[in-house]
Amino acid sequence: MPVSAQPAATPAASLVDLLRGSALLASLSPERAALFATAANEKHYRKGKVLYLQDDAAEKLFFIRKGWVKLFRETLDGEEAISDILTSGHTFGETSIFFDGHYSESAQLVEDATLVEFPARLLKEEITTNPVFAQAMLSVMMKHRRRQAMEIEHLTVQNTAQRIGCFLLRLCSDKKGLGSVTLHLPYDKLLLAARLGMQPETFSRALAKLRTETNLSIQGATVVVPDLEKLVQYCCNACSNAYPCES
Amino acid sequence: MPVSAQPAATPAASLVDLLRGSALLASLSPERAALFATAANEKHYRKGKVLYLQDDAAEKLFFIRKGWVKLFRETLDGEEAISDILTSGHTFGETSIFFDGHYSESAQLVEDATLVEFPARLLKEEITTNPVFAQAMLSVMMKHRRRQAMEIEHLTVQNTAQRIGCFLLRLCSDKKGLGSVTLHLPYDKLLLAARLGMQPETFSRALAKLRTETNLSIQGATVVVPDLEKLVQYCCNACSNAYPCES
Repeated sequence: MPVSAQPAATPAASLVDLLRGSALLASLSPERAALFATAANEKHYRKGKVLYLQDDAAEKLFFIRKGWVKLFRETLDGEEAISDILTSGHTFGETSIFFDGHYSESAQLVEDATLVEFPARLLKEEITTNPVFAQAMLSVMMKHRRRQAMEIEHLTVQNTAQRIGCFLLRLCSDKKGLGSVTLHLPYDKLLLAARLGMQPETFSRALAKLRTETNLSIQGATVVVPDLEKLVQYCCNACSNAYPCES
Repeated sequence: MPVSAQPAATPAASLVDLLRGSALLASLSPERAALFATAANEKHYRKGKVLYLQDDAAEKLFFIRKGWVKLFRETLDGEEAISDILTSGHTFGETSIFFDGHYSESAQLVEDATLVEFPARLLKEEITTNPVFAQAMLSVMMKHRRRQAMEIEHLTVQNTAQRIGCFLLRLCSDKKGLGSVTLHLPYDKLLLAARLGMQPETFSRALAKLRTETNLSIQGATVVVPDLEKLVQYCCNACSNAYPCES
């Protein structure tokens, strides 16, 4: 259940701007963006809220205005495999529209979040009637494919310490130059371990190794990297991308 | 260099049928399929041939008529990360078209192959002018995203023996019922280990474990699975898909 729903009178204009600022929805015409905004529902949810489960009918597409959302699947054994943890500006739920109309994974909030929800049929309509939108969607899909391909590469080529380092480097790709850098983990270490596909013990051992190799220190959610170049060298030599990478 | 190129007079008709039978190219109109066929170049290459390297200008899209092609990237350390090994009916090289026009990975033949090559610009044109084609392409991309998502899940949740078993199960997804099944590995074990992101020693240990757990036996390229249900149970309990899976 949403914590609160915005009143129906919320001006659509700001939503239109928001939508047109997203990679997927930027190519909507002003008229269609207005239509999307009118059909949209902005909701606030608390951490822990399950938005949908794998195999549920896929009726909605979601845009994250604020917060963190975990996408995951469960094995028959009951183990959870996290496929992504997304934040502001990302959309999710869109891939299901192309198959049998069922979500291919489950979605749950890992922090309180504000989401904009759209009827899936709007997206379908847009793809079939607006070639520019279909191309924008293709472009977003391709980027996602590349990101997944890099993740597969890292899982097979990098060691666990390098994979944690790689995650940290992606957090500081907006930092200019090298030298000392202070970062903040976006969510807790247990979740980070799960996102990286590691058991908590494996994660702890890997983190200890990364500390020794690169001299970084972690206090709560704060990570101090005293020598970014050292971290880059340690992680990126086991990767086919150079730092800073696009994905 | 191609081993031999088909003469220019090769009837385009059979190529048209071939193209329209591929998932990506099925939605071409008869006229466009004929245009693709006229612009296409069918070539035969020997095992080991490098078709293109990561970062080369992406001028061509490839369709595999026969044979096996390996897509891979190289880390700065010189290690090879195989992202896919494809065979008849698959296209590759198409994702590069959407970015900066450079291939995002390298492609090399792992067996002698017959390939149909198209100018990349034809695909670009088709996407911008044919909404049905753009949707078909989206559908293919989405399937690929799901396949990659499953691969990431397996890399994080399954053990190495289960991952080999899962590969074998995908080879026999066309076999009806359970019981005893005989399979043939499509390429050699060293390449299979690399495709699964395992060092040869890890692969050997995992295979020994899989033999013990499921009683299967391997002689050269022939794999005998005496009890398919046992293999399914061993592998698919650590997966969010039920057997037989779509991907």
